Amino acid sequence: MVRATLRDVARLAGVSVATASKALNGQPQVRASTRERVMLAASQLDFSPNALAQGLITQRTGTVGLLTSDLEGRFSIPILMGAEDAFGTDQTSVFLCDARGDGIRERHHLRALLSRRVDGLIVVGARPDSRPSLGRDLPVPVIYAYAPSEDPRDLSLVSDNEGGGRLAVDHLIRCGRRKIAHITGDASYGAAQDRARGALARLTEEGLEVAGGEVWFGMWSEAWGRGATRMLLERCPDVDAVFAGSDEIARGVLDVLHEERLDVPGRVAVVGYDNWNILVANARPPLTTVDMNLEQLGRVAAQRLFAAIGGTLGSGVEKFPGKLVTRESTAPLR
Amino acid sequence: MVRATLRDVARLAGVSVATASKALNGQPQVRASTRERVMLAASQLDFSPNALAQGLITQRTGTVGLLTSDLEGRFSIPILMGAEDAFGTDQTSVFLCDARGDGIRERHHLRALLSRRVDGLIVVGARPDSRPSLGRDLPVPVIYAYAPSEDPRDLSLVSDNEGGGRLAVDHLIRCGRRKIAHITGDASYGAAQDRARGALARLTEEGLEVAGGEVWFGMWSEAWGRGATRMLLERCPDVDAVFAGSDEIARGVLDVLHEERLDVPGRVAVVGYDNWNILVANARPPLTTVDMNLEQLGRVAAQRLFAAIGGTLGSGVEKFPGKLVTRESTAPLR
Repeated sequence: MVRATLRDVARLAGVSVATASKALNGQPQVRASTRERVMLAASQLDFSPNALAQGLITQRTGTVGLLTSDLEGRFSIPILMGAEDAFGTDQTSVFLCDARGDGIRERHHLRALLSRRVDGLIVVGARPDSRPSLGRDLPVPVIYAYAPSEDPRDLSLVSDNEGGGRLAVDHLIRCGRRKIAHITGDASYGAAQDRARGALARLTEEGLEVAGGEVWFGMWSEAWGRGATRMLLERCPDVDAVFAGSDEIARGVLDVLHEERLDVPGRVAVVGYDNWNILVANARPPLTTVDMNLEQLGRVAAQRLFAAIGGTLGSGVEKFPGKLVTRESTAPLR
Repeated sequence: MVRATLRDVARLAGVSVATASKALNGQPQVRASTRERVMLAASQLDFSPNALAQGLITQRTGTVGLLTSDLEGRFSIPILMGAEDAFGTDQTSVFLCDARGDGIRERHHLRALLSRRVDGLIVVGARPDSRPSLGRDLPVPVIYAYAPSEDPRDLSLVSDNEGGGRLAVDHLIRCGRRKIAHITGDASYGAAQDRARGALARLTEEGLEVAGGEVWFGMWSEAWGRGATRMLLERCPDVDAVFAGSDEIARGVLDVLHEERLDVPGRVAVVGYDNWNILVANARPPLTTVDMNLEQLGRVAAQRLFAAIGGTLGSGVEKFPGKLVTRESTAPLR
């Protein structure tokens, strides 16, 4: 396949390159009959218009750039999938570029994406805390997803972590649990604080205190889940539920409960966070967890970007509710 | 920032749009002085040439399309990183598109990438078995990575799974192990067969038989790792090493050994496959595993693609050796 050029199209249509270009770009100085001849020639030659021309014809190219610093692709991939599915199977392409939290790399990818006429950008941060804005002077609309922009004039779509914490604890309360502990990750993450705040608020509404007397902040790892659970069992041996701030932590919690021969969920119920399939499906037992609904977030982001072409995008931070996915690690107390 | 158009450049340079286009595209009919005036105008206006023009000027745009069907981004992400690092931090952008093993989606992404003048394509399959070729008539070079193309005229870079199996068993033999079992995934995967073949070949060289009398094929999951280990211990209670075909399987193996109070590595040594950080780092104990060197594979793929512009790419299947990453789950028998 040799790619047809604008020159080939012009020659076949019997017009100059400039006229062919004007015709394809929808400019008004071209007669309707000429335009039709050019369009026909382009179609006969299977002319793949360059990105610029295509953008001018259709006003949108159906392409979104996704600039991520989420190294493992863990949160980016569902956002990418949601964005692609916003308008049906083959209407949208998302180009993912990995900036690895590196400003130079980010600017480089940004230039590469813009020079290829993406319709808009979704920026996914490395962690769910606010990140610097790419600025207000970009030629395409930008949405910050997962991690909000520091600039309140930007539009950010984030996960409702406080609501997620409430969801988890509410479910445990409905299961009849009264001694509910919360083991979570790094206290410097806004998400850890927000989930804990939601969890504590729901406990307070119920007249309950958090088991063990405090939220166990630590690290986003299985090892911390194990260590914290050992301390928790020492301080509060009759704990009947643990809400873990991530699925990794929950795996560590399950490990130690298993070691101590404490039945899950008979004796202790466990809820995780993230719904990371590799971790939850093979857990013993399979793990009830909070899903951040990132596909939905990606879908809405793409719809907003395309709607914003020629219009305005809005601003501020919008929170997306998560959903609880129940599996065998939680059940009503009998 | 309002983006300058070719029209603006032409106006500033005092030439027609067609002349400006010819000048930027390096076509010969333009006088040198005119070309210089156009280039200067483009530079003054910070004109971001469209992808087509840019490609014609520089012969390469420094952009690679990565078409993946590896849903979880698990094998694609290291290949992407390697490709980006092939020429330094900000020389290359990789645009990742997720085809999800769906032919319609794949063709759609392919068109989107080609119309944006990527210099070449890396195609990453869903599983390490051969996949259909994208065909021989694409306008840019294509390399198949991880999963080879069915067409031997294409160039495929894959991981040496047989060599990886040898590496794992060789390490266990050097640790003084003599009763080495192999628990692995789905027997319909070429990778499972290749790893097993390499493992068995190395055992045979040493005059050993595989512990338990057979390779335990099953599923790529922790649950299978647990189930197979229970059967193995029943049949062969004095097994002193397990080579697992994936880190997930290895996690299941470790779980059951832990349950049975069989010390790792004192009593049984365990080796995994993939070096998937989330699984190996937090294992108890941290897991020795085979790393497929996918970043290196991605680096070489990008170098070959750029070298192939205007030249030829070569063909056939090239195998990349893995490397053993030792952690605490293996140690010499005392």
